[in-house]
Amino acid sequence: IINLSSCFLQGILERLDSGEIVIGDGGFVFALEKRGYVKAGPWTPEATVEHPEAVRQLHREFLRAGSNVLQTFTFYASEDKLENRGNYVAEKITCQRVNEAACDIAREVANEGDALVAGGVSQTPSYLSCKDKAEVKAVFRKQLDVFTKKNVDFLIAEYFEHVEEAVWAVEVLKESGKPVAATMCIGPEGDMHGVPPGQCAVQLVKAGASIVGVNCHFDPDTALKTVKLMKEGLQAAKLKAHLMSQPLAFHTPDCGKQGFIDLPEFPFGLEPRIVTRWDIQKYARDAYNLGIRYIGGCCGFEPYHIRAIAEELAPERGFFPEASEKHGRWGESLSMHTKPWVRARARKEYWENLKPASGRPYCPSMSKPDGWGVTRGGKELMQQKEATSEQQLKELFQKKN
Amino acid sequence: IINLSSCFLQGILERLDSGEIVIGDGGFVFALEKRGYVKAGPWTPEATVEHPEAVRQLHREFLRAGSNVLQTFTFYASEDKLENRGNYVAEKITCQRVNEAACDIAREVANEGDALVAGGVSQTPSYLSCKDKAEVKAVFRKQLDVFTKKNVDFLIAEYFEHVEEAVWAVEVLKESGKPVAATMCIGPEGDMHGVPPGQCAVQLVKAGASIVGVNCHFDPDTALKTVKLMKEGLQAAKLKAHLMSQPLAFHTPDCGKQGFIDLPEFPFGLEPRIVTRWDIQKYARDAYNLGIRYIGGCCGFEPYHIRAIAEELAPERGFFPEASEKHGRWGESLSMHTKPWVRARARKEYWENLKPASGRPYCPSMSKPDGWGVTRGGKELMQQKEATSEQQLKELFQKKN
Amino acid sequence: IINLSSCFLQGILERLDSGEIVIGDGGFVFALEKRGYVKAGPWTPEATVEHPEAVRQLHREFLRAGSNVLQTFTFYASEDKLENRGNYVAEKITCQRVNEAACDIAREVANEGDALVAGGVSQTPSYLSCKDKAEVKAVFRKQLDVFTKKNVDFLIAEYFEHVEEAVWAVEVLKESGKPVAATMCIGPEGDMHGVPPGQCAVQLVKAGASIVGVNCHFDPDTALKTVKLMKEGLQAAKLKAHLMSQPLAFHTPDCGKQGFIDLPEFPFGLEPRIVTRWDIQKYARDAYNLGIRYIGGCCGFEPYHIRAIAEELAPERGFFPEASEKHGRWGESLSMHTKPWVRARARKEYWENLKPASGRPYCPSMSKPDGWGVTRGGKELMQQKEATSEQQLKELFQKKN
Amino acid sequence: IINLSSCFLQGILERLDSGEIVIGDGGFVFALEKRGYVKAGPWTPEATVEHPEAVRQLHREFLRAGSNVLQTFTFYASEDKLENRGNYVAEKITCQRVNEAACDIAREVANEGDALVAGGVSQTPSYLSCKDKAEVKAVFRKQLDVFTKKNVDFLIAEYFEHVEEAVWAVEVLKESGKPVAATMCIGPEGDMHGVPPGQCAVQLVKAGASIVGVNCHFDPDTALKTVKLMKEGLQAAKLKAHLMSQPLAFHTPDCGKQGFIDLPEFPFGLEPRIVTRWDIQKYARDAYNLGIRYIGGCCGFEPYHIRAIAEELAPERGFFPEASEKHGRWGESLSMHTKPWVRARARKEYWENLKPASGRPYCPSMSKPDGWGVTRGGKELMQQKEATSEQQLKELFQKKN
Repeated sequence: IINLSSCFLQGILERLDSGEIVIGDGGFVFALEKRGYVKAGPWTPEATVEHPEAVRQLHREFLRAGSNVLQTFTFYASEDKLENRGNYVAEKITCQRVNEAACDIAREVANEGDALVAGGVSQTPSYLSCKDKAEVKAVFRKQLDVFTKKNVDFLIAEYFEHVEEAVWAVEVLKESGKPVAATMCIGPEGDMHGVPPGQCAVQLVKAGASIVGVNCHFDPDTALKTVKLMKEGLQAAKLKAHLMSQPLAFHTPDCGKQGFIDLPEFPFGLEPRIVTRWDIQKYARDAYNLGIRYIGGCCGFEPYHIRAIAEELAPERGFFPEASEKHGRWGESLSMHTKPWVRARARKEYWENLKPASGRPYCPSMSKPDGWGVTRGGKELMQQKEATSEQQLKELFQKKN
Repeated sequence: IINLSSCFLQGILERLDSGEIVIGDGGFVFALEKRGYVKAGPWTPEATVEHPEAVRQLHREFLRAGSNVLQTFTFYASEDKLENRGNYVAEKITCQRVNEAACDIAREVANEGDALVAGGVSQTPSYLSCKDKAEVKAVFRKQLDVFTKKNVDFLIAEYFEHVEEAVWAVEVLKESGKPVAATMCIGPEGDMHGVPPGQCAVQLVKAGASIVGVNCHFDPDTALKTVKLMKEGLQAAKLKAHLMSQPLAFHTPDCGKQGFIDLPEFPFGLEPRIVTRWDIQKYARDAYNLGIRYIGGCCGFEPYHIRAIAEELAPERGFFPEASEKHGRWGESLSMHTKPWVRARARKEYWENLKPASGRPYCPSMSKPDGWGVTRGGKELMQQKEATSEQQLKELFQKKN
Repeated sequence: IINLSSCFLQGILERLDSGEIVIGDGGFVFALEKRGYVKAGPWTPEATVEHPEAVRQLHREFLRAGSNVLQTFTFYASEDKLENRGNYVAEKITCQRVNEAACDIAREVANEGDALVAGGVSQTPSYLSCKDKAEVKAVFRKQLDVFTKKNVDFLIAEYFEHVEEAVWAVEVLKESGKPVAATMCIGPEGDMHGVPPGQCAVQLVKAGASIVGVNCHFDPDTALKTVKLMKEGLQAAKLKAHLMSQPLAFHTPDCGKQGFIDLPEFPFGLEPRIVTRWDIQKYARDAYNLGIRYIGGCCGFEPYHIRAIAEELAPERGFFPEASEKHGRWGESLSMHTKPWVRARARKEYWENLKPASGRPYCPSMSKPDGWGVTRGGKELMQQKEATSEQQLKELFQKKN
Repeated sequence: IINLSSCFLQGILERLDSGEIVIGDGGFVFALEKRGYVKAGPWTPEATVEHPEAVRQLHREFLRAGSNVLQTFTFYASEDKLENRGNYVAEKITCQRVNEAACDIAREVANEGDALVAGGVSQTPSYLSCKDKAEVKAVFRKQLDVFTKKNVDFLIAEYFEHVEEAVWAVEVLKESGKPVAATMCIGPEGDMHGVPPGQCAVQLVKAGASIVGVNCHFDPDTALKTVKLMKEGLQAAKLKAHLMSQPLAFHTPDCGKQGFIDLPEFPFGLEPRIVTRWDIQKYARDAYNLGIRYIGGCCGFEPYHIRAIAEELAPERGFFPEASEKHGRWGESLSMHTKPWVRARARKEYWENLKPASGRPYCPSMSKPDGWGVTRGGKELMQQKEATSEQQLKELFQKKN
C-alpha cells in the first residue's frame, strides 16, 4: 500500500498552521462493540486481523462523513495490554500483526479520499503497575516501530490519565521525527495525580507535542472546559500549540473526576445519554469559537456525529462532506413528508430548541458516580455516593479491605 | 449467486412448524442513515446499488449477531416510491436495479451462515393516494417479479398501516407459491381505518399469510400488546398462524395511535429513547413467553440488539451466535476490570435493575405527540397536544386551512 | 351556635338546581398533619377537641378562599375507627365529643360567610372486617345522630372504596331527611369489587343520593375521567343527579387501581407531586366543562388551591373570593417586580405553559405502585412491580405467607 | 403583654454559648400566601393588623413544631417598602401598626412555650435606589424603635444581598444593646457586589453581629456550603461568632448567583421542588455537623419541616417537640396500616433512600435561571439562558433597551 498522502496531501501541521480546520474521526471501540467485533472490558483491537472488512467499513464511513484523519485502530494495542486478553483472541494474533493490519487498513481507506493516517498509542498497564520509565517507554517504542515501518503521517498519544506517562509517550513518539499530538482523558479537575489541565498542556508541549487537548471520558461541554484551561495554561507559559478535542458522544454532567467509567451506566446502559447530531453541531461551533482547530470525537461518536461537525463548519471550510448527500441540513429532508406536522420539523429552530424526551419515566436524569479514585501507586480516594447504593458501597468496601 | 439455503437449509415454515425460534434482523434505514448511506425523509434503499459494501457489511453484522433471516434491503423500493425521490439519487438507478442488487447482497451474506433470504414489500404511495386495487397490486407485483427471479426463500409484507392494503400485498405475494409473512406497523388501537389488531390478523391469515404480527412504529412493550391482541383474534376465529414481532428499539410509552413518527423527536432526536441490550433481553423473553417464535427488530435495532435476542434465548436454542465471542453474558467481561466498582457490575442483577439516567436534566421523560391522524382518503383527526406547542399547532392549523 | 344558613342561605340543592357552581373545601387531614395536629397513619380528627383553634383557622382559610361548603372535620371519626387509635389521644376524647366539636367549629366559621355545613361519614373498619349490614349501619347512625342534633345543612358519604358500603351509608343518611351527596375514592377501573363507576353512580342515586362523584385517591385528571363514566352510567340509566369531584392535589398518573396509597411516596414523600394553582385552574375549567357543579378538593388541597377554583370560575360566578384580595390573577402581582424577567412572568400564557422542574435530577418522574389489591373479605390480588423493588416484594411475600 | 422570656428563659447568647441547639422558625410570607393572607410580589406583612388570628396560628404551629425563636412577622415592614404597596392594603395600616402588632402576636405565642422573640429587619428599597447611609439607617431605626418599645429578646438583620447594607443594619440594631444576628441571602459566589461569603461574615461580626449565617434564596445544601465558607472566613480572621442557617425548603441545584427568584418557577410553580421532611432531617444533621447551632428555615418551610429539625436533633437536645405527639419517627405511624406494603414503609431506611417521583413526566428536572444580575447602582449582568427561552430573552432585551 502506497502512502498517497505523502505525495499529494499537506501534512497535519501544514494544515493547522495555515488555519485549516481538521476533522478527526469517531470512537472505534464503542462502534465496533455494537457491531459485534470488540469486547467491552478488554476493549482491544484484534478485529484488525480477525475482521478487517468491519474495520475498513467503519473507517470508510468516517471518511465519507468528513474525517481528515483516520487513526489506526491501535487503541490498547500495546503488547502488555494484549497479553492480558483472555481466550477470546487466538494466540497467533500478535501485537505486531494487530498494529500492522491497523496501519494497512487505515492507509487503504485514507487513499480513497483526503485523509491523513495517524498512528496512536494510549496508556499502558505497565505504567499503572509501576514499571519504570524505561520499561514503559519500551512498550510505546514497540508500537512506534510499526508506525515508522508503515510510514503513518503523524502520531497521537491519547487517552492518558497521568501526564507523567503522557510525557513519556510523547518523548518516544518524537524520536520518529513525525508531528505528535497528545490528548489526555482528563476533566477540569486535572490528572489523577492532581496536575491541573493547564500544567498538563505545558508539560506535553515542552515534551514535544505540537497539538494538545483532551479525548474521551467526558461529554463535549466538559471537554471544552478542560481545553480552555489548557489554552490558558499555555498562554500563561507563553507556549504555542494547536488545540484538539475528541470528547465522548454521551451527556455526562454528573461525572466525577474520573469520567464516565464511574457512572453506573458504563458501559452497557449509556444509550439514553447518546448525544444528537444537533448537540454535536453546537459542540463543533463552541470548539471552533474556543480556537480549537482539530475537532473530532471519541467513544460514542458514530459517523453521523462526525458529519455533524463537518456540516456545522461547512461555511468556514467551504464544502460539505460526501455523506451530506444523504443528509439535509437541519432536517430539510423532512420538508416533503406527507404529514404537515412532520414537515414543520424541517427547520433549524425546531431541532436547536428541542428538548428530547427519554421515553423512560421511571429513570432519573442524573446518576451518582460509583467508586474511589485509583491512581498509579495504589492511592485510592473514596468519592461520595448517595443513599441508593450505600449497601453496594459497603460491600465494595468489604471486598476491598 | 447460488441459493445455498434451498439446498441445505430448512425453510421458514419447516423451522417454525418444528417449534424452532427464528431470529429476524434489525433496522436498515436507521442504521444506514447513521452510517451515511440513507436519507432520512425518503428512507429509500438506493444504497444497494450505490454502496453495496455498506449494505453487505450490515447484513453480515446481523448474521454474526444471530439473525436467521436476512431481509432484502427493499424497504420503500416500490417504483411509485422511488419516483418521488429528489435529485439525491441518479436517474439510472432504477427500481429494478435496486431490488435486484438487494437480493444479490442478501443472498451473498446469507450463504456465509445459516440464514434465509426474505424479499420484502411495504406500503405504497399508490394506496395512500387512492389508486385502485389493481394499480396497487401491480406495484407489488413488480417487486415480486424480482424476488421470484432471484429466488428468495420467502416473502414479507411489512410496514402497513391499513389492513386493506396489507391484504392486497399478501394476495400478490401468494401468487409466487412461497411462504408469506405479514406485519403491520400498528398499535393496540388498530389500523388507520379503525380495524382492531385481532381482526387485522384474521384478514391477513385468510388472505394467505402463514406468519402474522407487527413491525416498527412502537416500542417492544407496545408491540407485544398488539401481537397479543392478534393472537386472541386468531384464537377466537379458530385460525392458526405463526406470530412475529419486529418492534422499534426506542422507548415510546408516549406514542399516540400512529406511533413514533408523531413524537417530536422523530427522526433526529430519538437518541435518549434508544433501548439497551438488557431491555431487548427482556423483550425477547416476553415475546417468547407470549408464543412468538419469529422475533426480530425494526428501526433502531443495531446488531448488538439482535445479539441480545440470541443470547436471551440461547438456553432454548442451544447455542450462542458468533458475535457472542465478543460479548460476555450479562456484563461478565467486566469482571477483570481494574476498578472494583466496575467489576461489581459484572452480574445479571446489576444490569436488570439499572435505571439508566439520561444525563439530560433539562429534558422531560415523555413528550406529547404532534399531529393529526391521516388515513387513506384524506380524513384527518386532530389529536390533543399540550400547551408547550400550542403556538405551533395553531400555525400548523393555519397552513392546513 | 345558631345555624344562620337555615335562615338566610339557600340549601345545597336549591343552589345546584338553579345552576349555581358550588365550591367545596380542601383536605383537612393532610393540611393539619403538616401543621402538627393530625397523625399520618390513623388520620383521625381528635384535633376538633384538642386544638379547635387550628381546625377553626383552616376552615376560615377555605371560606376566605371561596368554599361554599364547610365539611365537618369528622373524617374517620366513626366509633369503630377511633377505638383503634393508640395512646396518642386521651381516653376521654370520645367519638361523640369529636363529632360535636367538629359541627360547632364548622358552623361557627360558616356563619362568618356564605357557606353551608355538611356532615360527613366515610368508610368504616367494621365493613372491611366483614361486619353485617346492620352493624355497619349502626356505626353511621351514631355519627348521624350528632349531625342531626347539630342541624348540619346536608350530608356527605365520602371516601368509599366499595359501593356496597357507600349505599348503606346513603341509606342511613337519608333517614335524616336532609340532602345527601356521595363520593367514592375510586378510579376509572371502578370499586374494589370490580363494580364500574357508572354502575356505582346508579346504585348511589337509587339509594337516595342527590349528588354523586368521587373524592381522594386520584389526581384531578383521573378523577374527571371517573366522573365522566359516572355521568354516562346515569344517562344510560335515565337517572338524574348532580355531579361532584374532590380529587387529590397530587399528580398521580402512575397510580394503580387503588390510587395514591400504593405509590411508594405515600404519605411522606409526595411533595414533588403537589399540583400548582395553575393545574387547579385547568382542573376547575375541565370539571365545569364536564358538567360538574360541585367542585372541591381532597388530600393535598390547600386554601390557595381552592382559591384557584374560585378564580377560574369567577367569570361564571360573577365574583372573586375574599382571599383574592391577596392574589393577582395569573401572576399579575409580579408586574411591579424590580427585575424585568420576573415582571415578564405576570401573564397567563407564561404560567399556563410552564413545565415546572423538580430540582431533583436523581429522581424519576414516575413510580411503580406497590402492593396487592385488598378487598373486603380478604381477597388479595398481586400487582406488577418493577425490578427495583423486587427484593422488597419478596420480603413482603414472605411476611404475608 | 408581658415578656415572660426575660423572667424565666435564657437569652439567645446564653443558650448558644452553653452549646445548646436553637431551632428557628419557618417561612411566613410563603406559608401565609398559600393560606390567603400575603400577596406574592409585594410580600408585605400587613396581615399582622388585618388578620392577627392567622399570624398567631402560624406562630403557634412553629412553636409546637419545636421553634425556640419566634421572629416578629416584620419582613419587608420598613416604611419605604410599605409605601410601595398598592391599593390592596388600607391607608390606615401604618408601618408602626404593622410592626407593633407583629411584636405583640409573637410575644403572646412565645409566652405559651419556651421561645424567644426576635425582631427582624431586612433589605430596603432605599438602599437599592442608592439612598445614602444615613437615610438607610434611619429606615432601620424606625423599626428598631418599635422592637425596643416592645422589648423583643434579640434582633435579626436578615435577607440582605449586599453586605454593605447588612453592616449598616447591624450597626443600627446594635444601638439597642440587644444581641444581634445577621443572615444574608447569598450563595457560595458571595454578595451582589462580589464580596465572598467569608469576607461578608467577617464584616458582619466586626460590625457587631454575634451570630452570622444565611437565609432564603438557596436550598439547604447550597446554604450549608455558603455557611462553611463563612466559617472558614471567620477562622482565617480569628473571629468568633455563632453560625446560623435558614435556607429555602425548595430544591434549587439549578440556581444562578441570585438564587431562586431567577428560576422560571418562582414564585407560583415551585411545588415540585418542595423538600420532604426527610430532606430536612438530613439538612439538620449536616448543619449540626458543620457546627451550626441556630438552625431554622425560610421560604417554603412549613411547621412539619421545623418539626423534622427538632426530631433529627432530639438525641442531642434530649427531647421531642410537642407536635411530635402527632408524628411517628421515620414513618412508624404506618406500622399499623392495613396494607402490608404500606406497613413496610414504617422504617428509616425506606424514607432515607426513597427517590420521590414528580408524577410529571412532561416536565424536566432542572431549569435554566432567567435573567440578569441586578446590583445597587443599576449595574446589570446578563446570565446565560438556554435555547427554550431565547425568544423570551430577546423580548426582555428589547424592553430593556
